Amino acid sequence: MALLDLILGRPLSSLEERGEKIGPVAGISIFGLDALSSAAYGPEAALTLLIPLGAAGVAYIVPVSFSIIVLLGIVYFSYLQTIAAYPGGGGSYTVARENIGAGAGLLGAAALMIDYVLTAAVGISAGVGALVSAAPGLQPHTLSLCLAILLAITLINLRGVRETGGIFMVPTYLFVASLLAMIAIGLVKTVLSGGHPIPVVAPPPPSPAKAAITTWIFLQVFASGCTAMTGVEAVSNGVKAFREPTARNARITLTMIIAVLIVLLAGIAYLDSAYRIAATDPGAPGYQSVLAMMLGAIAGKGPFFYVAIGSILLVLALSANTAFADFPRLCRIVAEDGYLPRSFATTGRRLVYSEGIWVLAVLTAGLLLLFGGVTDRLIPLYAIGAFLAFTLSQSGMVMHWLRRRPMAWHNIALNGLGAVATGITVLVVLVAKFAAGAWVTLALMPLLLATMTAVKRHYRRVEAEIASRNPADLSRLSPPIVVIPIQSWTKVAEKALRFAYTVSHDVRAVHVDSEEEEDNRFCDCWAEYAEAPARAAGLAPPKLDRVTSPYRFVLRPIADYVSKVAKDNPDHYVSVVVPELFERHWYHSLLHNQRAEVLKARLMWWSNPRIVVVSVPWYLKE
Amino acid sequence: MALLDLILGRPLSSLEERGEKIGPVAGISIFGLDALSSAAYGPEAALTLLIPLGAAGVAYIVPVSFSIIVLLGIVYFSYLQTIAAYPGGGGSYTVARENIGAGAGLLGAAALMIDYVLTAAVGISAGVGALVSAAPGLQPHTLSLCLAILLAITLINLRGVRETGGIFMVPTYLFVASLLAMIAIGLVKTVLSGGHPIPVVAPPPPSPAKAAITTWIFLQVFASGCTAMTGVEAVSNGVKAFREPTARNARITLTMIIAVLIVLLAGIAYLDSAYRIAATDPGAPGYQSVLAMMLGAIAGKGPFFYVAIGSILLVLALSANTAFADFPRLCRIVAEDGYLPRSFATTGRRLVYSEGIWVLAVLTAGLLLLFGGVTDRLIPLYAIGAFLAFTLSQSGMVMHWLRRRPMAWHNIALNGLGAVATGITVLVVLVAKFAAGAWVTLALMPLLLATMTAVKRHYRRVEAEIASRNPADLSRLSPPIVVIPIQSWTKVAEKALRFAYTVSHDVRAVHVDSEEEEDNRFCDCWAEYAEAPARAAGLAPPKLDRVTSPYRFVLRPIADYVSKVAKDNPDHYVSVVVPELFERHWYHSLLHNQRAEVLKARLMWWSNPRIVVVSVPWYLKE
Repeated sequence: MALLDLILGRPLSSLEERGEKIGPVAGISIFGLDALSSAAYGPEAALTLLIPLGAAGVAYIVPVSFSIIVLLGIVYFSYLQTIAAYPGGGGSYTVARENIGAGAGLLGAAALMIDYVLTAAVGISAGVGALVSAAPGLQPHTLSLCLAILLAITLINLRGVRETGGIFMVPTYLFVASLLAMIAIGLVKTVLSGGHPIPVVAPPPPSPAKAAITTWIFLQVFASGCTAMTGVEAVSNGVKAFREPTARNARITLTMIIAVLIVLLAGIAYLDSAYRIAATDPGAPGYQSVLAMMLGAIAGKGPFFYVAIGSILLVLALSANTAFADFPRLCRIVAEDGYLPRSFATTGRRLVYSEGIWVLAVLTAGLLLLFGGVTDRLIPLYAIGAFLAFTLSQSGMVMHWLRRRPMAWHNIALNGLGAVATGITVLVVLVAKFAAGAWVTLALMPLLLATMTAVKRHYRRVEAEIASRNPADLSRLSPPIVVIPIQSWTKVAEKALRFAYTVSHDVRAVHVDSEEEEDNRFCDCWAEYAEAPARAAGLAPPKLDRVTSPYRFVLRPIADYVSKVAKDNPDHYVSVVVPELFERHWYHSLLHNQRAEVLKARLMWWSNPRIVVVSVPWYLKE
Repeated sequence: MALLDLILGRPLSSLEERGEKIGPVAGISIFGLDALSSAAYGPEAALTLLIPLGAAGVAYIVPVSFSIIVLLGIVYFSYLQTIAAYPGGGGSYTVARENIGAGAGLLGAAALMIDYVLTAAVGISAGVGALVSAAPGLQPHTLSLCLAILLAITLINLRGVRETGGIFMVPTYLFVASLLAMIAIGLVKTVLSGGHPIPVVAPPPPSPAKAAITTWIFLQVFASGCTAMTGVEAVSNGVKAFREPTARNARITLTMIIAVLIVLLAGIAYLDSAYRIAATDPGAPGYQSVLAMMLGAIAGKGPFFYVAIGSILLVLALSANTAFADFPRLCRIVAEDGYLPRSFATTGRRLVYSEGIWVLAVLTAGLLLLFGGVTDRLIPLYAIGAFLAFTLSQSGMVMHWLRRRPMAWHNIALNGLGAVATGITVLVVLVAKFAAGAWVTLALMPLLLATMTAVKRHYRRVEAEIASRNPADLSRLSPPIVVIPIQSWTKVAEKALRFAYTVSHDVRAVHVDSEEEEDNRFCDCWAEYAEAPARAAGLAPPKLDRVTSPYRFVLRPIADYVSKVAKDNPDHYVSVVVPELFERHWYHSLLHNQRAEVLKARLMWWSNPRIVVVSVPWYLKE
């Protein structure tokens, strides 16, 4: 049954749930995608802020990248320790909650949620940016392209296509290989030319300088470049996914990801200054991404160019997919602790946490619309969430080590250094980017925290309200009155009637008289179809009540009738039997049951607590 | 209960359903909105095609508008007759189906559906075009603004805000008054200046001529200008809404709408040529709508300018709302005949035909995205649907009169003239706009028709499959086995248990053991909470079955357990009792019941036909 597979198929189990373990080779593509892809937008974001400095600005990419690489090194060593300490998976939420407290955990969760929304938006728009660089004719369609990719990723995730290493490995390794090849060729050319290589396709000349470097500009550039570090925490979240020796494999994977990322960042920075490639204004006509210009300058616009650009586009779009894989899972963990609606922890029909996917899709679409689909404008909002999560996680680790006896000073020092370095970075980014939009992140954080604690409070209240320490009261029970809405005599109606008599002898059918004579004719046969067989079986014959509807509405008169029956019989439950038709093909099922759903909603929504709805299925043949 | 009002409040009854009748004054604003608002985009669409002709092109707007006005006159007289003949409402679908046949009716319905989607898209994008003309800084946000307005209109319609004459009357009359005032001032100035008025704010000069007029260009301009006639059929659809004498009031309303529309079209055309206002390229920077330039030229950019532009924006956005009011209703009529999923005919929780609204919103959003939110590019797709519906409706009227005895030659001639004129226009538009996109409409039409007939065929098949002419078989009935999924002992669980014993003595609770000790503790109290009271009441004690789940899933083990029970007891129904929590505040209800819904879906979706699901409500206190 293709339908069953499609709708209720096997769960989209995360790797750790499936018990299927991976090694470093697959690990790099699964957990490194987000981190490695940031090499495609981090340097770009930094260079964009250097545009006003003209030709002189390009040189500053080297010291900025150097600072970021140092920070990356510190974070790397800190995370090596987190992995060792949390072999079960040490996301910021878990580490902060367990070691600092629920508040810190929630702060980490809020930071990460904001970060994931931004990852999705930045990934997609950077991917489209790469595409637009290669095909400038698509520039006016930037926003539409972003939304189309978002829709595709959302649907893929909703349908529960499983993450398979294979899907991710090809573009990841193609991306890494292309960029490493570009760097290698560029370095050789640079060395052979004595440091002044001649570009194959010359990048557009830098715009004239309008400003000189200041500490302030340097900080801003650094803050933007820090987006290159997002995604580094992914391995620590998924340690469980690795095969034995788990921690060691995870550490190898992290090491390789960081090593490649450092080579990419350093290589891009060096070649950018050697080839003197200034960023172009994103969103403006003639925009080209830095990597596109660099590829053109180093290797020309041949097949290699298009393969590399294609891999960049794919990897960026897939990095958005990482957010779609992780955001719903983070929401689930938080929801299981009661801080988000429980529905985030419920697998949907297709066994994915669909609610998280929807929420992420809607938020991402909102961001893309608000910013017109251009990455650069999203950057100010970025990095804060990621670095706040880093800081909380590292601080949590410090607390973790402090509680251990004997004191592991070495560990405390390393995680402490990580916490301080990332904490300072949070402040730098916050200050440097405050006016440009970081205040939005800052304002969202307390809002999210307040929502999450309100949700928790609500669940606590409900729990208290329905709590019981008393045995059940099973006295004075009487059989329910069964009501069957019937518009015409069919096999489905017969099944409903049969079921009704298995639970009660007080069965009543209700028919809404319509203006068409034909519809009402069946009432004349009621005695033959229903009353006679009931008498023959020794049962009280089913009553047929006919109600009239002034308009063409059918559901409301039924609901009114049921309410009246419930009111008139205060000692009985009223069971309303609602048949539902099921089709072999999912697209046929669009043609049925909505009326049943709406009737059920009408009957139960703040109506009489003694009204219950019985859904009886009828499976149609092919 | 504000909540009840919000969710289950009074029906969004159409005027005829409510029995609340209107006169011509309200009628003009309710039914004329769409037609009158087309004065804001019809001439613009024609002038846009005249851009390549440069300054010379502007003069052709007068003969083009004259042709359109003549056509409008013919259609007007034909519709007067339709109103008289169909006092119950004569939409194209109804008239064509009753007089020509089901195929023609469906063709009319398909044409109208396409037309409504385009009305919504064109209305919104033209409204945003007016806004962008007044505030050019918003130009880069055209698409986002369009989508935001679409979202607002969709939500308003989903929430079921009733159409009240009041809401529509203010902008409609403001719009008509502004444009009439503009025309009056313009005419006076033109006459006083001897035909050569000096603009207050000069419109941008026409671009240099690149082409000369040809019949082909003239036809294209005419085809685009014909969009000014859309919406004229609205009155004939809603005759029932008028108070006695119904037909007379409807005819007065139609007459006034057409009269005002003719004055607007003629006035705009004349003043455009007098002031020599050429259209500017829509979607390009510096774009201004023709009406904005004309207002500026005649009265300057003072308060009057902004009031008029504001009313144009509002009326255009509200004309999209007309599509949102009519499209779902058309879908409902077609669905009641079985040609569309029945759910189109089911009122949603908020008593509107929500499915039609959703479908329209999604299609409109798709169009806006595809065309970047710029009206002009949508025009080629337009008009065909509207004029095809006109033609079918008029042809249907001809058949109607031909069947009447004695033959009403006068009526036949008038509707015949209408049919021929609109039929020719369909051909003209089709030919003139084929390459520009009219082929899309043409290709969609058979697709829609095929879908509708497939749906009808499906319903017929299902009907045949469940049809029954036999009395019910009520022999060999045995009480159901009741299964209650219980994770912890609460008042809700107690209610489920109580209900279970009213329908059967074979009650089984199922508990999914989790990894947390605490969750499982309740099993130890089962004897005290459930078994003892059952024995005390003389009932068979409820069995507690514990199942384990390898992962954290809860729903799947329950579904598996229920399936097994059903399989092991082939002579019994298995009733699964699923409690649902209801909250006082709708936003709280987001926090509950999704799990119940998913469990129900799992239990029933192509599972055992003897498994039924009983939804038992629990209403939480404040």
